[in-house]
Amino acid sequence: MSSTPVPIAIVGIGKIARDQHIPTIAADPNFRLAAVVTRNHPVEGVPAFATITDMATAMPEVKAISICTPPRGRLDLVREAIAAGLDIMLEKPPAATIGEAEAIAEAAAASDVVLHATWHSREAAAVEPALAWLADRTIRNVAIAWKEDVRVWHPGQEWIWESGIGVFDPGINALSVLTRLIGDTVLLETAALRFPSNRTAPIAADLTLSAGAIPIEVAFDFDQRGPQTWDIVIETDGGTLTLSAGASKMAVDGTPVPVADDPEYARLYRRFHHLVTTRTSDVDFSPFRLVADAFMLGRRETVDAFDWAS
Amino acid sequence: MSSTPVPIAIVGIGKIARDQHIPTIAADPNFRLAAVVTRNHPVEGVPAFATITDMATAMPEVKAISICTPPRGRLDLVREAIAAGLDIMLEKPPAATIGEAEAIAEAAAASDVVLHATWHSREAAAVEPALAWLADRTIRNVAIAWKEDVRVWHPGQEWIWESGIGVFDPGINALSVLTRLIGDTVLLETAALRFPSNRTAPIAADLTLSAGAIPIEVAFDFDQRGPQTWDIVIETDGGTLTLSAGASKMAVDGTPVPVADDPEYARLYRRFHHLVTTRTSDVDFSPFRLVADAFMLGRRETVDAFDWAS
Repeated sequence: MSSTPVPIAIVGIGKIARDQHIPTIAADPNFRLAAVVTRNHPVEGVPAFATITDMATAMPEVKAISICTPPRGRLDLVREAIAAGLDIMLEKPPAATIGEAEAIAEAAAASDVVLHATWHSREAAAVEPALAWLADRTIRNVAIAWKEDVRVWHPGQEWIWESGIGVFDPGINALSVLTRLIGDTVLLETAALRFPSNRTAPIAADLTLSAGAIPIEVAFDFDQRGPQTWDIVIETDGGTLTLSAGASKMAVDGTPVPVADDPEYARLYRRFHHLVTTRTSDVDFSPFRLVADAFMLGRRETVDAFDWAS
Repeated sequence: MSSTPVPIAIVGIGKIARDQHIPTIAADPNFRLAAVVTRNHPVEGVPAFATITDMATAMPEVKAISICTPPRGRLDLVREAIAAGLDIMLEKPPAATIGEAEAIAEAAAASDVVLHATWHSREAAAVEPALAWLADRTIRNVAIAWKEDVRVWHPGQEWIWESGIGVFDPGINALSVLTRLIGDTVLLETAALRFPSNRTAPIAADLTLSAGAIPIEVAFDFDQRGPQTWDIVIETDGGTLTLSAGASKMAVDGTPVPVADDPEYARLYRRFHHLVTTRTSDVDFSPFRLVADAFMLGRRETVDAFDWAS
């Protein structure tokens, strides 16, 4: 794009902001990182403010924000952004509760700002090729195995163990890909959740979902040592599709299918720019609803205490 | 009303159908009980069918159904009713999961049938007088105590202990009144749930909710011996409103305020008839969302095993 870059601010400078958002914005000619909103984690060379309102007052040229805080308190941030007329990119998960997520959607719909409730895994390189491959095939069943070591991917991030999160922080990524591939008619049938004895969020979960007649088996684990697994296997009447490495790779009947090497966050920001340019919101909370339903219906088992260092 | 009564069928002949729906329909000139859909619980003098489709095929004159089954499986029943062109009254709770509730709402919205997702406690006699009294006052805080003995009100009803229900079966009645009085902007802040060691649903819950700046404290108990309590106390800048006996009675600063003696289900069926006549749906799942959020965020404690006979 040759148009002027959109001045954007990041709210919440934690691991995901530093690992993905800051370098992606730096490499994207569509955006320019104009400010950050953070109390304790400044970014060198970028003006920092304590609140969105402070930032918007001091820098009215900023047109958009990317919210990267933990999920608690998102509704207040969204309201502040709307009051300042800022377009909003929202990191997943969108909120701490379904009520808060619905209130966010309603507040944005009643405003003139663009809301992009993001699911970064939907931008993984094999997702759109998989959709195209599935278009003229009938799905028979789906199996998801999403198993990683929380100690490696979220070192010391205590918010990940807040109620309602735990293994669903990575798990919701798989659910976001699933609902992109199958549509938002996926329903939760049963759930089994395993809670460490010293935590209020689950470290593992087994779910049974359905989409019409299609059975979907899901295994989430946050305590996976050795090789990490982010696989979705879809059996169809025309072969078996395997998405691996978080849907960045794809194979049909075991034979790899080449896909573009296009990083998730680069695609995510291109999409946000398109939404801002066309004044269109993208708000789909179906992955989050599946998580809420897993907590509502899930049978609970207590397992060994979790320790970051063990 | 002097128009021809609407032929209606009841789906699911359990305690609520016998205690409320059948006698209410019998007394309401707007409706005529034309059929029941039940596998094992016929009603004397009323044609019975195994499925909604069987009933609609045999009796095309039936125009509406009232779904009184336990929440699991509601989506399939609603789809069957829509396919048969039947207007639908849905007992609370509307479904087993948020995903199922949303799918019900979407299916009805895409059809020509009327969907009335009911909350019978919103029809309690003091609710509308309370709304009128609150109209020119500012609420400072709300306290809800909803405490009953499951053995008395749900004798032997094992479905009440299915995952996701328990004390929220009566509790959601209080939440339905609360959201009617305060609007659907009520959010869950914290929850503590107590599970009997032999059940997968809670027997008690303490919730902290908020509506803007208004704090709302909630205590639900399903193990209340002796006097039963269904109270909502609302402190305002112009006095304290107390709703008691499930919002069928009302007092201001301790002085009783007379309200009509108008049973909940009589009002509920009058409202359904109005909706059917005006071809309007009424679907508000905000009480159910608060329950889902309580399960998602709730901290859990295990308490003594539950026994129907103890």
